[in-house]
Amino acid sequence: MATEHRVTVRVRYGETDQMGVVYHPNYLLYFETGRTELMRAAGVIYSEMEKSGVFLVVTQASCRYRAAARYDQELTVLTRVDEVRKATVTFSYRVLGPGGGLLAEGSTELASVDRDKNPVRLPKEVSELLSK
Amino acid sequence: MATEHRVTVRVRYGETDQMGVVYHPNYLLYFETGRTELMRAAGVIYSEMEKSGVFLVVTQASCRYRAAARYDQELTVLTRVDEVRKATVTFSYRVLGPGGGLLAEGSTELASVDRDKNPVRLPKEVSELLSK
Amino acid sequence: MATEHRVTVRVRYGETDQMGVVYHPNYLLYFETGRTELMRAAGVIYSEMEKSGVFLVVTQASCRYRAAARYDQELTVLTRVDEVRKATVTFSYRVLGPGGGLLAEGSTELASVDRDKNPVRLPKEVSELLSK
Amino acid sequence: MATEHRVTVRVRYGETDQMGVVYHPNYLLYFETGRTELMRAAGVIYSEMEKSGVFLVVTQASCRYRAAARYDQELTVLTRVDEVRKATVTFSYRVLGPGGGLLAEGSTELASVDRDKNPVRLPKEVSELLSK
Repeated sequence: MATEHRVTVRVRYGETDQMGVVYHPNYLLYFETGRTELMRAAGVIYSEMEKSGVFLVVTQASCRYRAAARYDQELTVLTRVDEVRKATVTFSYRVLGPGGGLLAEGSTELASVDRDKNPVRLPKEVSELLSK
Repeated sequence: MATEHRVTVRVRYGETDQMGVVYHPNYLLYFETGRTELMRAAGVIYSEMEKSGVFLVVTQASCRYRAAARYDQELTVLTRVDEVRKATVTFSYRVLGPGGGLLAEGSTELASVDRDKNPVRLPKEVSELLSK
Repeated sequence: MATEHRVTVRVRYGETDQMGVVYHPNYLLYFETGRTELMRAAGVIYSEMEKSGVFLVVTQASCRYRAAARYDQELTVLTRVDEVRKATVTFSYRVLGPGGGLLAEGSTELASVDRDKNPVRLPKEVSELLSK
Repeated sequence: MATEHRVTVRVRYGETDQMGVVYHPNYLLYFETGRTELMRAAGVIYSEMEKSGVFLVVTQASCRYRAAARYDQELTVLTRVDEVRKATVTFSYRVLGPGGGLLAEGSTELASVDRDKNPVRLPKEVSELLSK
């Protein structure tokens, strides 16, 4: 749980807006890449999890914007598992610019549900892998 | 088939890019609004069509960009059914700016498929309504 | 400040994801439509504000997701000005489904900056109009 | 001109739609990654080109969709320079799935313009690098 996962994303042209910086909702996409790759590194392939019938839905998201990201920059997304509970998992994120400065930080809470969107327990192996 | 359907869309902030104009793939979203509203006006609610098990997948799309659209402008999307065949329908589109100038024009071909993505005939009532 | 502004948005196809519901970052787009239209109704055309050299950048955003929105639904976005300060304005939002049920609620803080992204006071008429 | 550039992109969750496949306009984003990375490999950093005052605007885009791409798949984008003229460059693209099957193919024409969107010649070094 203490380990922070690191992945880089390159800002695409279409992710900018007319202010010349990354459009603010797109940080949630970077967060998603962060948690997906953290999970993959921990041994949980989220696309396989969905195939097995367990889905993680975002129930809460927040972001503080500190400085602007720009087109073609390679950003670093640092992701951490904050808390694993029976049927929810909370991740926190920091997005750093090319020089290492903090651009944004935030968190998301996700709940595990079945195909019919009913809450279900997180699969045991997922809880365990994410709790490490 | 000869009638042209008209709908307006207002450019959202996030649809612009750092060039200060609408990012080019977003015209395909305007096209989609155009054909969905043309269909609705003709009596075909596409979301209902999907519920009944028939999906329209885009098999071809093209667009020529003539002039730039800008944030907050109200654009007019003119949509026309070009051709209805057994299992495909082709739409063409023109996007006009606030002053009536042509900004973009294009077309899309859609094929009707079932839930398993196998080709199926267009529902008869859809063919008929779109052929009028 | 007490008045709540109401605008409707129709869910576009591309706003859904493979879970069959609206992809969570897209609620921030609905929030943006909410505050832009609240401002317009109050007499502040944001695109004109930018032309005059004052920009509103999102410095904080949060959203709680209560229930899923689906393709082609007409959603209601209720927007309220929570607080107007010298150089920031905070909005809160509620997104309702076709039946009036709460789908999501959230807030954003925006700061006014000049072309060089330096903080500036909100234009007086903007503060006044938004404080009403 | 004969060389084909290869880059991989991983399908993001938000790039899918409720059909469970990549939403069709998103292929234009993959095309953009393809040409940007082809240019970078040839020695042309597009973001630097913009800073020097020359912009490439898409004047035409087309895509044929052959098979569906799915969430989390690693796609291969093959990009080729088709033609370099005084003030335009045309790229063609093929997108392959994980097994190597063709998912989509298309092309885009781009025109070089200055900050005021007036046509200008392609910078000589760009023409030369892309013509190799």
